[in-house]
Amino acid sequence: MGIRHAPTILPGLLLAMLAAAPAGAAQPRGKTIVTQGIGGKVAPCASCHQANGHGGGNGTYPRLAGLPAPYIRAQLEAFRSGQRSNAIMHGIASGLSDPDIRAVAAWFAGRKAPWPAPPGGAKAAVRAGQELVAAGDPARDVPACQDCHGPGLRGGGPDIPPLAGQWQDYLEKQLQAFADGSRPGGPLDLMGRIAHRLSAKEMHDASMYIAGLRPGQSVEIPRGGKTSWKPKPQSPDSFTPPPEPTMPTAGKYGRMVQLGEKIFMDTPRYAGKYVGNSLSCRNCHTGRGRTATSSPMWAAVPMYPKYRGKNDRVNTLQMRIQGCFRYSENGKAPPPDGRVLVALSSYMHWLATGMPIGIKPKASGYPKVTEPAAGFDRDRGRKVYASHCAVCHGDHGQGRVVNGARVFPALWGPQSFNWGAGMHRVNTAAAFIKHNMPFSDGGSLSDQQAWDVAAWIASQPRPQDPRFNGDLAATAKRFHKHRKYDYYGRKLDGHTLGAPGTLGAWEKKHRASD
Amino acid sequence: MGIRHAPTILPGLLLAMLAAAPAGAAQPRGKTIVTQGIGGKVAPCASCHQANGHGGGNGTYPRLAGLPAPYIRAQLEAFRSGQRSNAIMHGIASGLSDPDIRAVAAWFAGRKAPWPAPPGGAKAAVRAGQELVAAGDPARDVPACQDCHGPGLRGGGPDIPPLAGQWQDYLEKQLQAFADGSRPGGPLDLMGRIAHRLSAKEMHDASMYIAGLRPGQSVEIPRGGKTSWKPKPQSPDSFTPPPEPTMPTAGKYGRMVQLGEKIFMDTPRYAGKYVGNSLSCRNCHTGRGRTATSSPMWAAVPMYPKYRGKNDRVNTLQMRIQGCFRYSENGKAPPPDGRVLVALSSYMHWLATGMPIGIKPKASGYPKVTEPAAGFDRDRGRKVYASHCAVCHGDHGQGRVVNGARVFPALWGPQSFNWGAGMHRVNTAAAFIKHNMPFSDGGSLSDQQAWDVAAWIASQPRPQDPRFNGDLAATAKRFHKHRKYDYYGRKLDGHTLGAPGTLGAWEKKHRASD
Repeated sequence: MGIRHAPTILPGLLLAMLAAAPAGAAQPRGKTIVTQGIGGKVAPCASCHQANGHGGGNGTYPRLAGLPAPYIRAQLEAFRSGQRSNAIMHGIASGLSDPDIRAVAAWFAGRKAPWPAPPGGAKAAVRAGQELVAAGDPARDVPACQDCHGPGLRGGGPDIPPLAGQWQDYLEKQLQAFADGSRPGGPLDLMGRIAHRLSAKEMHDASMYIAGLRPGQSVEIPRGGKTSWKPKPQSPDSFTPPPEPTMPTAGKYGRMVQLGEKIFMDTPRYAGKYVGNSLSCRNCHTGRGRTATSSPMWAAVPMYPKYRGKNDRVNTLQMRIQGCFRYSENGKAPPPDGRVLVALSSYMHWLATGMPIGIKPKASGYPKVTEPAAGFDRDRGRKVYASHCAVCHGDHGQGRVVNGARVFPALWGPQSFNWGAGMHRVNTAAAFIKHNMPFSDGGSLSDQQAWDVAAWIASQPRPQDPRFNGDLAATAKRFHKHRKYDYYGRKLDGHTLGAPGTLGAWEKKHRASD
Repeated sequence: MGIRHAPTILPGLLLAMLAAAPAGAAQPRGKTIVTQGIGGKVAPCASCHQANGHGGGNGTYPRLAGLPAPYIRAQLEAFRSGQRSNAIMHGIASGLSDPDIRAVAAWFAGRKAPWPAPPGGAKAAVRAGQELVAAGDPARDVPACQDCHGPGLRGGGPDIPPLAGQWQDYLEKQLQAFADGSRPGGPLDLMGRIAHRLSAKEMHDASMYIAGLRPGQSVEIPRGGKTSWKPKPQSPDSFTPPPEPTMPTAGKYGRMVQLGEKIFMDTPRYAGKYVGNSLSCRNCHTGRGRTATSSPMWAAVPMYPKYRGKNDRVNTLQMRIQGCFRYSENGKAPPPDGRVLVALSSYMHWLATGMPIGIKPKASGYPKVTEPAAGFDRDRGRKVYASHCAVCHGDHGQGRVVNGARVFPALWGPQSFNWGAGMHRVNTAAAFIKHNMPFSDGGSLSDQQAWDVAAWIASQPRPQDPRFNGDLAATAKRFHKHRKYDYYGRKLDGHTLGAPGTLGAWEKKHRASD
């Protein structure tokens, strides 16, 4: 343990500079440690992980090339502290100072190395793994891996490593380690909680699939093939949507359902003409629209046509979705008989297979959370946000884009929903948050935390209400009647929410971090 | 029996002229018989029915005022022949020659007389009667009374008397008489068949309601009030739509469902802007869209969005209904988010309450009827038409309008569906006819009769296919590929079906009879 605090040869700052030095300059400290170790006390990393970070030992030694530096650093620190249990790595990490760790992390982060060869494996296992990885299991609150690890599992930010390109054996062992607690569960212990919900077979199958991914390959839910599943009439209160692999694929109908799913999962990409921000349907309707607490599509579909106070008329399903585009997507309404809405309704309709028409299910929208006796407080909420939300949604609600792909949604600012969306109200946001956030760990916040953080989020600048008529007070009076739960038009933090210019000023201030 | 053929005092023609003579001229023969009888052998009708035909005896003597002359004639003939069993009326009618009967019938047909006072009666019974009268019971193939007896039960043509204005006791006894065979069942014995399906209580209740109608009153299904009925998930193959009285009435949604029902039942009146003929949704979807063999709405709703070959795309429910307007209604497509289609889908959606989404029910469209070994023949079909269809649909397929209201739909000609409607194909029409015609007696025609009469109907002039591109052969080739079952473009009876001018020529010829 003493070694851990041993003085470094060079001051931290200079070491960091060396580590970051371009190739061809004096050999960076990271390379030195990796290739030569630290004489007498630290073996060279390369002896197991190879100098390019390719790893080896058939997965005993993970591939480190290209992993985010903060992630590698956190692992070395966890080995050193013993939080992450590994006798060899504990010994090695114990010989590394903080600057050493930073140097090594930077080195491996900058490496390129070939991906391990695909492990092969039984076709059925790989397919089962693919289904779990790509679709998750909303009924058990198991998210799809790419929900956090990004498209193609190429990484979800500094704390969330890529999984693609990793060794199968290593991946499987890590899932086991998350589950048995011998490895910390990462941000908010999310991986610990998720791994707990998986069987040993699922860990194996998932790792087999992931390790078989090739560079650039996207993660797709396996579809088609034989299935013994048959749709049957179900009770609205014990409903299970059809299994993902049974999604129709044949003909124009199949293609339409699949397009609907694509639009649902990545709305800006597949319906960009009607979208004015970075949000997708799935952001408010998690689990691909299946999660019972997250306004599931299968609960909505059977109830339309339905009267809606917001536009004071009876809405078909397509008209209801138009509202989402106008407000939550900060865009404009696609035509009710056009490709976008026909595709979305086809997908949603498929999700509702077996639901009885016109019988209101218990699962509908977000289950209400009663306002706590202590009310709600945006300053308390700011702290909840910092501890529980910022890791994914960013310090300024900007969400996260990795490798050009949106991984986590913006909660406020220009890329988020506008002042007309239902989610801008504290009560609605509290209900959503309480049951569905942190992602894959819904229900873990107290009611008080959910209301407080909802207030924090709901009191931030966002795009104008499209019903704004030029007069903020009049617009607020007409369309924002739930004054207690609605910050539209209020003066806070030196700006007036919803006033022209407020969002622009905010944007200018925060652009750098978005 | 000899009396029946007794020579008349005046030649028949002259007698008829007298009977039709205006008041103030020489007293017509009808009035003489009615008020004075025929000395020694026929008592004056007025002694029981009163001279103005008001009837009496609390319904022992029916009100005859304003009944259609052919109907009165048919009754007197049936009394005379003994087919309609009534000792007193047999004796009287036996004293009347054919011209006497015509004279008496004409007299009463021309009378006006007050309606009997409403019978009162238990509220629950009247309401039960109202429901049966106004809605029928599609599950038992009991039509609504006004389906044949016309709006407000003010009459459905020369053979179908008004029921409104009649005595309760008489109405109830006639239903019993239809059921026990002591009165002939009228055209095609339809009333015999329908009455057989009713309980004694239903006959009583129905007559109580009808006798309570006031002049000009419309027949409405009772809605609202208490009900123990609760929607529940159902199997698609043993589905029962919600009871009529439970239709939502409250708020904008209730009003929308009710508007949808109105459009469904009288499309030209409530959606006239989009209708180019005299047909209503209910004509192809009998029993208010409930009848299992008549393309019921509850079987269609859960299957949309759905691919449709006809327009080669995935259709929402609204897009599918647009097709009905374009072809079956010979009109134009209402907007998918406009009042007409939102109302219709709301009504249809309500009918499907409890149906599971996306599970194809056995009841769907018209159950296929295999083409008979002997094929089909329009000349045989012409005879079936004359014996089984013309009584309602007219000699020239023009249907029937009574007191300005459409009672029976036109099957061809300018007021019928156009060459693009599915029903113009022999196989489709055969399937509809076999299972649903004659109205309230579906299944009574042989397959051969259904196919033959379908061929007769399908080979008549009707409005142009809206896809017609100016070239009949090219249009037929592109859109009328089922040549065997499709007469579009064929030369028959000296005209070419679908050719410009054919319908106009037909119309000019038959306008008088429409």
